[in-house]
Amino acid sequence: MTKLRIAGGQVLRPDASVERADVLVDSESGDIAAVGDPDEVPEGDETLDAEDGLVMPGLVNAHTHAAMTLLRGYADDKELDAWLQEDIWPVEAEFTPEDVRAGTELGLLEMIRSGTTAFADMYFHEEEVVEAVEDAGLRARLGYGIVTVGKDEEGAREDCEQSLEVAREFDGAADGRVKTAFMPHSLTTVGEEYLREFVPEAREDGIALHYHANETTDEVDPIVEEEGQRPLDYARELDMTDESDFVAHGVHLDSTEIDLLAETGTSVVHCPASNMKLASGMAPVQKLLDAGVTVGLGTDGTASNNDLDVFDEMRDAAMVGKLAENDASAVPAESVVRMATEGSASALGFDSGRIEEGANADLAVVDLDAAHLTPHHDLVSHLVYAARGSDVRHTLCDGAVLMRDREVLTLDAEAVRERAERRAAAAVERAE
Amino acid sequence: MTKLRIAGGQVLRPDASVERADVLVDSESGDIAAVGDPDEVPEGDETLDAEDGLVMPGLVNAHTHAAMTLLRGYADDKELDAWLQEDIWPVEAEFTPEDVRAGTELGLLEMIRSGTTAFADMYFHEEEVVEAVEDAGLRARLGYGIVTVGKDEEGAREDCEQSLEVAREFDGAADGRVKTAFMPHSLTTVGEEYLREFVPEAREDGIALHYHANETTDEVDPIVEEEGQRPLDYARELDMTDESDFVAHGVHLDSTEIDLLAETGTSVVHCPASNMKLASGMAPVQKLLDAGVTVGLGTDGTASNNDLDVFDEMRDAAMVGKLAENDASAVPAESVVRMATEGSASALGFDSGRIEEGANADLAVVDLDAAHLTPHHDLVSHLVYAARGSDVRHTLCDGAVLMRDREVLTLDAEAVRERAERRAAAAVERAE
Ligand SMILES: [Zn+2]
Ligand SMILES: [Zn+2]
Repeated sequence: MTKLRIAGGQVLRPDASVERADVLVDSESGDIAAVGDPDEVPEGDETLDAEDGLVMPGLVNAHTHAAMTLLRGYADDKELDAWLQEDIWPVEAEFTPEDVRAGTELGLLEMIRSGTTAFADMYFHEEEVVEAVEDAGLRARLGYGIVTVGKDEEGAREDCEQSLEVAREFDGAADGRVKTAFMPHSLTTVGEEYLREFVPEAREDGIALHYHANETTDEVDPIVEEEGQRPLDYARELDMTDESDFVAHGVHLDSTEIDLLAETGTSVVHCPASNMKLASGMAPVQKLLDAGVTVGLGTDGTASNNDLDVFDEMRDAAMVGKLAENDASAVPAESVVRMATEGSASALGFDSGRIEEGANADLAVVDLDAAHLTPHHDLVSHLVYAARGSDVRHTLCDGAVLMRDREVLTLDAEAVRERAERRAAAAVERAE
Repeated sequence: MTKLRIAGGQVLRPDASVERADVLVDSESGDIAAVGDPDEVPEGDETLDAEDGLVMPGLVNAHTHAAMTLLRGYADDKELDAWLQEDIWPVEAEFTPEDVRAGTELGLLEMIRSGTTAFADMYFHEEEVVEAVEDAGLRARLGYGIVTVGKDEEGAREDCEQSLEVAREFDGAADGRVKTAFMPHSLTTVGEEYLREFVPEAREDGIALHYHANETTDEVDPIVEEEGQRPLDYARELDMTDESDFVAHGVHLDSTEIDLLAETGTSVVHCPASNMKLASGMAPVQKLLDAGVTVGLGTDGTASNNDLDVFDEMRDAAMVGKLAENDASAVPAESVVRMATEGSASALGFDSGRIEEGANADLAVVDLDAAHLTPHHDLVSHLVYAARGSDVRHTLCDGAVLMRDREVLTLDAEAVRERAERRAAAAVERAE
């Protein structure tokens, strides 16, 4: 029974205070065994140096498509529709299981290096994602993304069946680090008849839902026209707004939909970088927080970001949150850090995102002795406005060290990068 | 006569193409002696390794207040007025020349580490900034910032005299790496009578102007009310829109003001992070570019950013530029890189910002072999959307190497950080 002591650092506590403390990790249970004054925390069998560092909960990226790292920088600065139809979808159609594996591993490498310990993934060939997550040591909530538009009935039903199957088969995989969900891509890309048939099937098995909602006005207007109601009212009617469900984006929400989210307990994953880069709009994040909605933070796929660095995402969330409210005091640093840790973890149903005895030992240690993090007036502010993924020194998940002194232990970084580079080039060549 | 060869890398050319090339730097003249096919570039006396790297023009931060790094994270998430009056100004009032020196050196350290080779600075005790720039080896356009509101006539005139004196005394300092400007803080914080008297004095000596303009509606509305004209028309009437002048922000511009800027050749320095963090608004950057206005990029002070990393600023510029136009194709990566290099350099009157024979050898080499920069579909996109200051391997200014393999050669990083930390704490203590 190994106990690892993270020693010498300052620790970010759930109330957003920062104190000099040591953290004792139980590597067997994967939980935090103790946290507090160095004199009062029991000795460990091993020590991880956190001097000049801040121990924080591992960041949780609550919405992404990890394998899309293969398309990082492939097609930028284009209108959403043209971008998807001319650039992204044709290449994705060429992705083999090996491509998805290679892209996911590149994503996991980037996550570990930037202090992310858990994520939600919507894609295809998810069996590859499960294996990659198992090997790399992260925590994930994943599922197969259903799109029925443009498919015949047989193809559409197959997509739905596959999403259910993935949700059933992999829940609890990787020693319980993997959870799943039923994942219709969005309310406009999956036909109503399929939602009416398959959502109840998911509910019967207690499977939660994850989908894109209210990302652009093009996603809202057709539903308002055809259904005569707002998208989330439509979703509620379809039993898609359970407390266990989480939706991505939530940019174009009216006040009744914000109330609906608060009432039902459905979580929202805010993706500010994607919303800016695709000119989707500004999500009403402060209003969501004020209403008591659980808000997490996600990068979305790298093709619309273009990285998986949740530090960037925190900065973006604070920045665009103020702009959206025309109020410099909106979406303050403390709220943002909470979104990227507890908020995201709660949306994904993980017992992580906070440094507390008994919680998952999913942690990141951030180096503080850098020019861009000097002086130390306010470390919570630094996490949001000045730190970046490359400041992370160690990353732990489920009590295991995934990166020590910036060396990733669970992936061969050079091989992962080389494979991703090769497979990305080949997929693009096949598509063009 | 030493020639330094930057060998083995890819090179970003002025037309935004990227090619495998070597760069020969003349360390004596400080210029680029040759650039091109490795077989055709003459041998150097020394070599700097750029393998797996991208050689790009050093970034130019065209608007900042470097010493404000002492206030990084000191007071965030506050309304602009309260922030200035309750937090920032009281501490700045306590800054001694030694504090300004310490804060500036911290800023220079951060700049060099993130590939910035030139900047514009508006502050006080500028003689300290000149010395710091001389020692650190960067290039700068600097001046004393005048504020007359809240001062009696004697104090106001003293401020103006001092700004003229600084502009006269330090122009050409540090082997010509320092240029100066006359710097009224803004059109609302300097009284009209002082502008009417002192701007002509600056003009007589051929001194250019730098000031904040149209940053917030609070800066626009009083001028429209009192003067019956838009701020930049008012500025033009005061002879403050010369081709050599550059204004910071330009958020709230109407179309006549955009035309005025294009016509007069006055440059605008876009500061997207500050504009978001203080909820000032979204500058019409694509419209400025379309009108042919010279647009540079600036971080503004760290207290409203909170870093001096121009890579962050590039990402912000692309992101908020799309949001402002409701168009994902607006402010594309190529335009942004140009803004942060040639655009800023042109605004500041420097012969840098492009890799070309005869231009200043102000350069940065970016490491490309990182997970977050894989794969290499488009390196210009990577610079804007995925790279960050910590990816810079070497930084050169005026032909001299300021950072080699991430070791800063011209500043003692640890001493600079320690001094800044100590002085920041003491200044805050005195103010509180
Ligand atoms: Zn998505
Ligand atoms: Zn400023």
